[in-house]
Amino acid sequence: LREWRRRGWPARGERVTVAVSGGADSTALLLALEELLKAGLLEIEVSAAHLDHGLRGESGREDALWVSELARSLGFECVVGRASVGERARDERDNLEQAARRARYEFLAVEARRAGARAVLSAHTLDDQAETVLLRLLRGSGADGLGGMAAARGLEEGGEVCLRRPLLGWARRADTEGYCRERGVEFRADAMNEDERFARVRVRRRLVPLLETFNPRAVEALARAAELLREDSAVLERLAAVLLEEARAVVRESRAEVREEPAEIKDGPAEVEEWSADVREARAGAVERREGAWPLRVEVLGAALPGLRRRALRLWVARGRGGLRRLSRAHLLAVEKLLEGTRGGRVAELPGGGSVERRRGLLLFRRGE
Amino acid sequence: LREWRRRGWPARGERVTVAVSGGADSTALLLALEELLKAGLLEIEVSAAHLDHGLRGESGREDALWVSELARSLGFECVVGRASVGERARDERDNLEQAARRARYEFLAVEARRAGARAVLSAHTLDDQAETVLLRLLRGSGADGLGGMAAARGLEEGGEVCLRRPLLGWARRADTEGYCRERGVEFRADAMNEDERFARVRVRRRLVPLLETFNPRAVEALARAAELLREDSAVLERLAAVLLEEARAVVRESRAEVREEPAEIKDGPAEVEEWSADVREARAGAVERREGAWPLRVEVLGAALPGLRRRALRLWVARGRGGLRRLSRAHLLAVEKLLEGTRGGRVAELPGGGSVERRRGLLLFRRGE
Repeated sequence: LREWRRRGWPARGERVTVAVSGGADSTALLLALEELLKAGLLEIEVSAAHLDHGLRGESGREDALWVSELARSLGFECVVGRASVGERARDERDNLEQAARRARYEFLAVEARRAGARAVLSAHTLDDQAETVLLRLLRGSGADGLGGMAAARGLEEGGEVCLRRPLLGWARRADTEGYCRERGVEFRADAMNEDERFARVRVRRRLVPLLETFNPRAVEALARAAELLREDSAVLERLAAVLLEEARAVVRESRAEVREEPAEIKDGPAEVEEWSADVREARAGAVERREGAWPLRVEVLGAALPGLRRRALRLWVARGRGGLRRLSRAHLLAVEKLLEGTRGGRVAELPGGGSVERRRGLLLFRRGE
Repeated sequence: LREWRRRGWPARGERVTVAVSGGADSTALLLALEELLKAGLLEIEVSAAHLDHGLRGESGREDALWVSELARSLGFECVVGRASVGERARDERDNLEQAARRARYEFLAVEARRAGARAVLSAHTLDDQAETVLLRLLRGSGADGLGGMAAARGLEEGGEVCLRRPLLGWARRADTEGYCRERGVEFRADAMNEDERFARVRVRRRLVPLLETFNPRAVEALARAAELLREDSAVLERLAAVLLEEARAVVRESRAEVREEPAEIKDGPAEVEEWSADVREARAGAVERREGAWPLRVEVLGAALPGLRRRALRLWVARGRGGLRRLSRAHLLAVEKLLEGTRGGRVAELPGGGSVERRRGLLLFRRGE
């Protein structure tokens, strides 16, 4: 409840959907909400949602049944969905964990909208956060990845439902297990949580215990590092957007096409004024059509600090493509490399057919087909 | 050599001092310099420096002898120093590793100046970088700590000699051992490198091998993460300094004292102009006496993003105290907490007797005695 207040989430009048797998974490979250509602400390409408990923046959169906019975016994509505994650992963050439995650979030978004809920609650704990940070560290992620999960974010891009993680900032997994036992509820054990073929399971069972021999509060330390890095990222993302504005080239429109010309900004305030007017005009005009991936002036980007330039280019490419999917660090490095030297006419290809070209002092984004 | 060029370090005419412990890394660095000099690819003057930390009695003296013989056989001058790190750690209530490090850097700075060297070279490798990142992660550091070691930085605050780490960005420890063997030189084994009472040794011998079962290139991934975070930190540190300028309060001087008044900035450009003039005046005046920890307007800091505010306050306190020594996260959180609410008259104490007070809409730094 303290976390709830600290985050400024409304304590009354809202409708929320809780994602319940049946494991200790989500069972504890559901039980805690019931306790807070009963005590009158929260006055919100709660429903539960459970997705059977279709990966474990009979035991998946048993989990679903168990969750809906638990929810009903606590006086909550419960919706159960079923997906075929295995097939989906094959079709989309995704790994199982990612496909399961995507299916789950889609299901939750649909169910939240159907129930008229403003927020989906998920029961991620400090341990989940630490595991996420370690997995990303092992991949060499920067601050964005190492920032781990946010306590609150939009559930879908552009959607209105948000995702909240009320346990993320303070609860250990052992706490949720303890609370379930205290309430006399036997949570379900997920066989996937024991399967050491999954990197996350090995992190949990081998890496975290070793880290705790160095610092008994290693999990908390990792979660704290993540929080600091998330704060840094928030600043840098905002600045990257500002840099994109500053690097934006003048766009002149003719009837049939949008042409880019290298901006030639001199020192005089009149030229700058004029350029600003052009920028404002361009903002209102060609921009929407390009979804924000407007032509950028190489000169401005080249003068920016590397940490900022890197993020600005990533943001720009993401705007142009409508997301970062399948984009690797190598692709972004190739785009960044276009800024080096003075030679134009070079192209960096992006996955899915898009590309970035350097021409006449500008970086130009081209969408794939 | 490629690293040398990438960093833009001069390839001729310079004088450098190499820190040589006698282990594989520093021995390899010295051998590599000799090879590059012989091949005419570098034309710089190289000398070696070795500090016996006085921690290992006879074997410490043997190492010193070995290093100076190696250096002379390669045609380099060599200086050997001796410190009593054990006593020093006791006196300054520092841990052994930190006291040793401090003694070594002081010795190197003195020797570099004496030799007229522009730079001290140290032989830290990718492995050292990864270990540093992990140790800091275990302490819950943010981006500054997790950024690890820089490839180049000033050796002392305000000094002219710089510290360069030519192996940090690319060489694994196994590479340096291999190169020593290739050259037929048997490097010294440091008993401290085997002593599992040191956290760094346990990280090297237990944690890193486990991480490599997840990703064979885990060390490289950690070093890459560190590099990204260092770039982020560079941006954020610069912005924090800008925020301090923006938050700087008007300082009016009377003969006997420096009084602070809450700045009341209205929207009109005239007032802002006037305020800027005040700021410029204050900059030339009272500021030097406060060593940069000028009064800050709570209102401006309160409106800044947390990631930036946190760094700005740390920078401000560091300027006021002349460094961050003994300052913990808890101290900085206490300072940050002063920004909350509307009540003044509150004080956050700092180690060493200094303090920060919130009064009349300002944060005021007071030096300890």
